[in-house]
Amino acid sequence: MAEKKSPTAAILIIGNEILSGRTKDLNGNYLAQKLLNSGIKVGEIRVVPDEKNEIVCALKSLKRKYTYVFTSGGIGPTHDDITADCVAEVFGVSLPINETAKKIIASHYPKEEEDLNEARLRMARIPKGASLIENRVSKAPGFHIDNVFVLAGVPKIFQAMVEFVIPKLRSSSPIISHTITIHKPEGEIAAALSDIAAKFPKVSIGSYPFEQEGSLGVNIVITDRDRRTIDVVAKLLSSI
Amino acid sequence: MAEKKSPTAAILIIGNEILSGRTKDLNGNYLAQKLLNSGIKVGEIRVVPDEKNEIVCALKSLKRKYTYVFTSGGIGPTHDDITADCVAEVFGVSLPINETAKKIIASHYPKEEEDLNEARLRMARIPKGASLIENRVSKAPGFHIDNVFVLAGVPKIFQAMVEFVIPKLRSSSPIISHTITIHKPEGEIAAALSDIAAKFPKVSIGSYPFEQEGSLGVNIVITDRDRRTIDVVAKLLSSI
Repeated sequence: MAEKKSPTAAILIIGNEILSGRTKDLNGNYLAQKLLNSGIKVGEIRVVPDEKNEIVCALKSLKRKYTYVFTSGGIGPTHDDITADCVAEVFGVSLPINETAKKIIASHYPKEEEDLNEARLRMARIPKGASLIENRVSKAPGFHIDNVFVLAGVPKIFQAMVEFVIPKLRSSSPIISHTITIHKPEGEIAAALSDIAAKFPKVSIGSYPFEQEGSLGVNIVITDRDRRTIDVVAKLLSSI
Repeated sequence: MAEKKSPTAAILIIGNEILSGRTKDLNGNYLAQKLLNSGIKVGEIRVVPDEKNEIVCALKSLKRKYTYVFTSGGIGPTHDDITADCVAEVFGVSLPINETAKKIIASHYPKEEEDLNEARLRMARIPKGASLIENRVSKAPGFHIDNVFVLAGVPKIFQAMVEFVIPKLRSSSPIISHTITIHKPEGEIAAALSDIAAKFPKVSIGSYPFEQEGSLGVNIVITDRDRRTIDVVAKLLSSI
């Protein structure tokens, strides 16, 4: 039952550049690690294009299913930056210029408000009821409404926003991973491994084969919130 | 209308190791590029855990929506390799030992069939009605049923299977990308960019800001199937 109450998360990466293979996504992996350290289990990472229907549809489904949803991308000044519009639609709220966001964005430019053309002002449109997420790299903030956290796609800015957001989440006992390397082919240890996994149905035991200088081995990754349980499983595994 | 008939694809990455941030996914990016070169537009990449419900649910939804679904991972010999079981459930077919697959797998081991223990034999379980996908790296095949292609998660094997599969897909005129670099801040060119994008609603025009040695710029990526359209848009963009 404790497991059921532990927070979960989905990461929604928004951007045609990832789906075309042009750009490698770095943000999903970065955030997944940070969340794990806070005891928040990532249940899904999803990459969708810069298309309103797709973003709205994914947001609706993920925000129902997970404690937290984090989005990456689509909050810049150009026509293809439509994440804020989509989030406002999902929550059925308006998308006005947020005066605090406007001041923060203006402070980034030499002539401040004078430099705020229409495009830059787009970045100050924040769904009604949302709170701002600090961006100490380039000022234009992200935002947070209900269980949805909207972050920038540029990795340096994304990471800064993650640092700001993590302490605000409901954390849980950290999820601990322990890796055991066995220098045998996966097919030889699979039966013994399966027996141990069956004895500990709540512990995640992953098997990742590798080849090193022509010889085969397996990394067994034991993941759980309880260090003692991990130790018991690890001891059993070391003897196979 | 031609656009509507062009093939689309989703990539489903199966594996706790990606969701924990322990392993970076390389397969989604690799396959996305290959598909783009064949004119197949990737509409979604989704990462789910090694859990039956999650895999079945994702497969059902993706196979309805896209021309092709490619899965990565979960077809090895261990207890956490459940992709074949999930695919069989989704298509409502049995999962017998496939005699051809069994022979192929046996050929990988020194004593052939004698070395096929129960775990290795798991890899010969292929949904009824599926055809095999060659694995020239470590023999154990993937498979293909209806519009779902089931590939291994180990990148070297995944890539070999992709090479085998690509020629069998219904390709289309390749999707061409053209990048224009503008050395101005994104916020300064956004309005002009937006006007051009509005004139070509069917052309994907992405704007990707960067910082290089302290100065700001934008890569504008124009994507379309028609080279002449790209040239027209590129010419307009170079003057902003």
